[in-house]
Amino acid sequence: MDPRVVELHRRAACRHDVIALAGGLPADELLPRAALAAVIVDVTRTSAALQYGWPEGDERVRAWIARRLAARGFAISPARVIVTTGAQQALALVAAELAGARIAVGDATYPAALDAFEAAGAHATCGTADARYVIPGATNPVGVDVADRGVVLASGAQLVVDEAYAELRFDGRVARPLAADAPDRTWHVGTISKTLCPGLRVGWLVPPAQRHAAVLARKQAADLQTSGFSQLALARLLDVIDYDATLARARQCYAARAARLYGALRRHAPELRTREPEGGFSVWCETDTRGDDLALLEIALANGVSLDPGHVFRPGDAHAPVAFRLCFSFAPYDQLDEGVRRIARAWRSYVATGGGLTT
Amino acid sequence: MDPRVVELHRRAACRHDVIALAGGLPADELLPRAALAAVIVDVTRTSAALQYGWPEGDERVRAWIARRLAARGFAISPARVIVTTGAQQALALVAAELAGARIAVGDATYPAALDAFEAAGAHATCGTADARYVIPGATNPVGVDVADRGVVLASGAQLVVDEAYAELRFDGRVARPLAADAPDRTWHVGTISKTLCPGLRVGWLVPPAQRHAAVLARKQAADLQTSGFSQLALARLLDVIDYDATLARARQCYAARAARLYGALRRHAPELRTREPEGGFSVWCETDTRGDDLALLEIALANGVSLDPGHVFRPGDAHAPVAFRLCFSFAPYDQLDEGVRRIARAWRSYVATGGGLTT
Repeated sequence: MDPRVVELHRRAACRHDVIALAGGLPADELLPRAALAAVIVDVTRTSAALQYGWPEGDERVRAWIARRLAARGFAISPARVIVTTGAQQALALVAAELAGARIAVGDATYPAALDAFEAAGAHATCGTADARYVIPGATNPVGVDVADRGVVLASGAQLVVDEAYAELRFDGRVARPLAADAPDRTWHVGTISKTLCPGLRVGWLVPPAQRHAAVLARKQAADLQTSGFSQLALARLLDVIDYDATLARARQCYAARAARLYGALRRHAPELRTREPEGGFSVWCETDTRGDDLALLEIALANGVSLDPGHVFRPGDAHAPVAFRLCFSFAPYDQLDEGVRRIARAWRSYVATGGGLTT
Repeated sequence: MDPRVVELHRRAACRHDVIALAGGLPADELLPRAALAAVIVDVTRTSAALQYGWPEGDERVRAWIARRLAARGFAISPARVIVTTGAQQALALVAAELAGARIAVGDATYPAALDAFEAAGAHATCGTADARYVIPGATNPVGVDVADRGVVLASGAQLVVDEAYAELRFDGRVARPLAADAPDRTWHVGTISKTLCPGLRVGWLVPPAQRHAAVLARKQAADLQTSGFSQLALARLLDVIDYDATLARARQCYAARAARLYGALRRHAPELRTREPEGGFSVWCETDTRGDDLALLEIALANGVSLDPGHVFRPGDAHAPVAFRLCFSFAPYDQLDEGVRRIARAWRSYVATGGGLTT
C-alpha cells in the first residue's frame, strides 16, 4: 500500500468530523458483541484456546468450514482446510507458493492482495498470466461476475479465489465455489472478517490437495498457528448463533446502505461513473480525468470525507484516469448522503483547482 | 520441521499413556485462566478488539513492551514496537528481511526458527555468517550465555535476538537487552507465549529503526494485523495481574521441575551428557552414539514417553552424534521421574537393538 495514502488515512482516523467512506470495514453494529460475551468466559477455561495448537487449526472450525463448502457443492474433508490468520495470511501463503509467477488481477483489485503478491515475489498484472486472482460474489472494486465463471474456468490457469465477499451478495445468491470445478488448480480463500468479526483474524485456505503439505509447513513457519483463543471463540460463537441468519441480516444492512450511497451518488455526483453494487462493501467510481488521486484524497479529507484512491487498487504503475472506491459498509446509514455530498464537493473542487494536472 | 517427527508427535498427542517431554509448552496450571475470565467479557465490548486495527498493533500493548524494555536499559518509543502473531511471525519477518544472508545459529537451535529462515531463503549455518541468531537467558537447546555477550556484540554481525526465555532464568537475573548495545543491527524478538499464554499468539519485533517501515509493510502484507481480540485480552490482562509476580511464580515452577528432571537424569541415565538448566523449559542430552534419532523417538514412544530428536535442532544435514531435548515445562512435576525412567529404558533399548546402526 502506498505509504502516503496510509499516512493520510491514519490522520483521518483521529478526526471525528470525517465521514469514513474508505477502508472496507464491516458495520460496527453487526459485530457479534453479545454472542461473544455470552460464550467467551467458557473459552478462557479451554486448554485448546490458551495452549499451543496444531498449525492447521482447530478441528471444529475446520469441520464447520468444510460443511459449509460441501453445502455449496465443494465436498472436502476438514483435513484439507488450513485455518489462517485472516484471509490475508491465506493470500500471503498462496503468493509464496506462486513466487515468480504472473498473477492476473484485472484492472483494479484488493490492495492488500497486491501487497501480498509483491512481498512474495509474485507479479500482479492486468494481462495474461500463469494464475488468476478473483473475488467472486462482489466487486472489490472490480470483480469477476458469476457470468464470467465459464471464462475463468476455461483459462486453465491456477485460480486464487478470494471468497471474502462470496456470501454477501444482496440477492442472497451464493455461487458454487470455483474450487468445486477446478480442484487441482484452485487456491480457495475464505474469512469471517466481513461476515462476523475481523478482529478475531480467522480466515482459511484450501490449497490444491497436492500442495497441502507444503502450504501447511509454510503456515507453521509463518506463525506456528492462528490464535487458538480466536479460533475457540469462533467455534463457541458458531454454537450459539445462526450463521445463515447472521448473513441475511448483514446482506439487508449492506443492501440498504448500498442503495443509499448509490442513490446519493446519482443525485449529487452524476458525473462519476458507477454501477449499482450487487453485494459487498463498496462502489467503484470512475472518471475520464487524468491526474493525481492522492491530491483528490487530500481534498476529500479537507471536505470531511475519506475515500480510497484508485491507484492503490491497480497493479504496476498503470496511469489510468482517476478512479476511487467508496465504502458504504462502515459509516452509519444516516451519514451516507452527507458523505456523498462532501465527495461531490471534493470532486468538483479537485477538477476546478486543476488537481488533475499535478502529476 | 521433519514431517516424520511431526507425524510421530501427532500420534503421541492422542495417547494418554505418553509422558510428554517434547514440545516446549508452558505448564497448563500457569495459564492465566481466572484473570482472563475476569476481564474478557469487557474485551468483547471493545471495538478495537473486534474491528480491523493498525498493522503495528494496539498502542497499550506496545507501550507495555516499550516500558519493560526501557526498565532493562533499552529505552525506545512504543512506535518502534511491532506486535506480531507470536514470536514466530517476528522471526519470519526478520528472515524475509535477511533473505539470502547466512545466519549463524550455533550447533543446535530452535527448530521453528530454522523453518522460518529456510522458508524465507535465509541460510542457517553453524559457521561464520552475516547474522547471528541468539536465545539469551536460557538454552533452547544450546543458547548463548550472558558470559558470551561480549563475543556476540564484538562480531559486528546483524543480531536476531529471540528473548522468548529471557525473563525465565531461575535465578531471576534478566540481562540487558542486546539491542541496547547494538541498536542499529539488532532485531529484537519477544513474546508472552512462554510467560503467560501461547494461545493468544502475541509476540513482538523491534527492528533496527532504519528497517522499521519496510518491516511494518511486510507485516501488513503477511496478515494485516495480529488478532485485536488477543491483543485487547492481553492489554486488559496486564491491567489486573502483576506481571513480575507472574514471572516469579513461573520461575519457581520451572526451577522445581528442572531440578526434578535433572536429578532423575543423573540417577536413571547417567550415561547421557547434560548440563543442569539455568532457566527455560528444557534439557539437552548428548551422547557419543551415532545413528538415527527418529528410531530413538519411536522407541521412546513405545516406552510411553516423548522427546524431541536432536536432528530437528541442527542446521543443514550435520550428522552429529545422537542428541535429544527433554522438556520439563509441561508434564506434571509428579510424572517427571517416571518420564526419565522411561527415557533411560528407551535409550538402553535403542543402544542394545543397534538403533545407532540404522542410518
